[in-house]
Amino acid sequence: MSKNTNKIAKIAICQMNITTDKHANLQKAELMVRKAFSDNGSDIVVLPEMFNCPYDYNYFSRFSETFPGETTSMLSGIAKELNIYIVGGSIPEKDGDRIYNTSFVFGKDGKMIANHRKIHLFDINIKNSISFKESRFITPGENITVFKTDICTIGLAICYDMRFPELIRKMTLMGAKLIIVPAAFNTITGPAHWHITARARALDNQVYFACASPARDTGSTYEAYGHSLIVDPWGSIIVEAGEQETVLNAKLDLTEIERIREELPLLKHRKPDIYKLDQKP
Amino acid sequence: MSKNTNKIAKIAICQMNITTDKHANLQKAELMVRKAFSDNGSDIVVLPEMFNCPYDYNYFSRFSETFPGETTSMLSGIAKELNIYIVGGSIPEKDGDRIYNTSFVFGKDGKMIANHRKIHLFDINIKNSISFKESRFITPGENITVFKTDICTIGLAICYDMRFPELIRKMTLMGAKLIIVPAAFNTITGPAHWHITARARALDNQVYFACASPARDTGSTYEAYGHSLIVDPWGSIIVEAGEQETVLNAKLDLTEIERIREELPLLKHRKPDIYKLDQKP
Repeated sequence: MSKNTNKIAKIAICQMNITTDKHANLQKAELMVRKAFSDNGSDIVVLPEMFNCPYDYNYFSRFSETFPGETTSMLSGIAKELNIYIVGGSIPEKDGDRIYNTSFVFGKDGKMIANHRKIHLFDINIKNSISFKESRFITPGENITVFKTDICTIGLAICYDMRFPELIRKMTLMGAKLIIVPAAFNTITGPAHWHITARARALDNQVYFACASPARDTGSTYEAYGHSLIVDPWGSIIVEAGEQETVLNAKLDLTEIERIREELPLLKHRKPDIYKLDQKP
Repeated sequence: MSKNTNKIAKIAICQMNITTDKHANLQKAELMVRKAFSDNGSDIVVLPEMFNCPYDYNYFSRFSETFPGETTSMLSGIAKELNIYIVGGSIPEKDGDRIYNTSFVFGKDGKMIANHRKIHLFDINIKNSISFKESRFITPGENITVFKTDICTIGLAICYDMRFPELIRKMTLMGAKLIIVPAAFNTITGPAHWHITARARALDNQVYFACASPARDTGSTYEAYGHSLIVDPWGSIIVEAGEQETVLNAKLDLTEIERIREELPLLKHRKPDIYKLDQKP
């Protein structure tokens, strides 16, 4: 962490409705980021997964952009104007023939300071329920994304990535104190798994854990669960949205992490000599 | 797994009161194991952590036994007589000058088929709340415990061990389909962390996860939380006890594991090339 680490960080999540109109999505995102800042003086504002594009095979290619592009330029401009960090949810990123599900992060000077390409693609097939094969159109990323800010070191994952405890542990060992996850769980996996996964990751790693979902749109082919939430390092939910469009705010007291890690020293008690996890299953 | 794998396994947890009278504890354990078997025809019966001894510094040494000893001989005899598996919670095991917090497992022929010495010792110090330093009297184990039965391959951990996702993942990669955890969370960490930890481990690894606690005794120096529970591979609680002494039963359908792992292929989607975890923090 840098020397000028703040003790309190104000974070906002924009749980926005996402439509099939890309420009409407960009306008909405900009509006909500501005509102988050003006209402709460947020230090960091987070958008949801695929915030400029429906989570639907038919739109990924058409809505994709190279970097820099229209969406990322908009985010960069607001970050600089408001002097805040923006975690740009994710967008379909075009790179040559490939499309990635990518989150771009902008610093206070508007410069891109990190980007995360979703590593674990959402290929599930639950009988008589939800089926999706993200890997049909999206190429997986191959890198863990942890970056420094003047708030704290931050880990960044996208949706299905959060289901893999190794990834979140690794981010923690790399110094992350806040882990941010733009995500779009659905109305099947959301009620079943969203809270316990977010809470267990926060608790096991004794970090703040913030998940940003789109609002629920019952008219879309893929209904996001909503319920964006922010969990503290004790595993308790600080604040949680419902299904509707909303800006969710929290103040993160970063000194809490040190206190909890001292009182319940989980990270110190790890036994890496006993459970090396480098072998494949 | 062996060829004669059963599809349905009947498991029972004996959430027993533990007293400062060792012989009373042994009698109670025997009674409850017999009751679990006679009422439900259990294939495997699980006792809680330190079932023959209060979870209190003052008793660990005095109640400790070498193997074989009085407690383990009793368990071995019942396992053979009833032709069931018994996971003997844990006891203070004496080995030379050292005392371990050890779980002994007996097969249907009464032979000891596995033993687990608690790896992660419970050294916590939460201000104005609970403080305990297990390592003052207990020596940590150094081995991961996974063993085969004709039910399925089983992983065995003790209490605080379950807080370490790497350990449970490793057991899963070693083939465990059912993970059993004799444990004694308390009335602070229990309400805060017991359910989410058990549910997340089951969900992340797509295994059955069974946690056996002592009943709550408001007169003891360390008040166990109770709430023994059994979680399915989707992360849902099948059955959960309250605080009182009780036998908890569940039928585990082992074919569910394969179905869930096919529909939501978390283990297949792991990326061990990306998040090797062998380095120390």
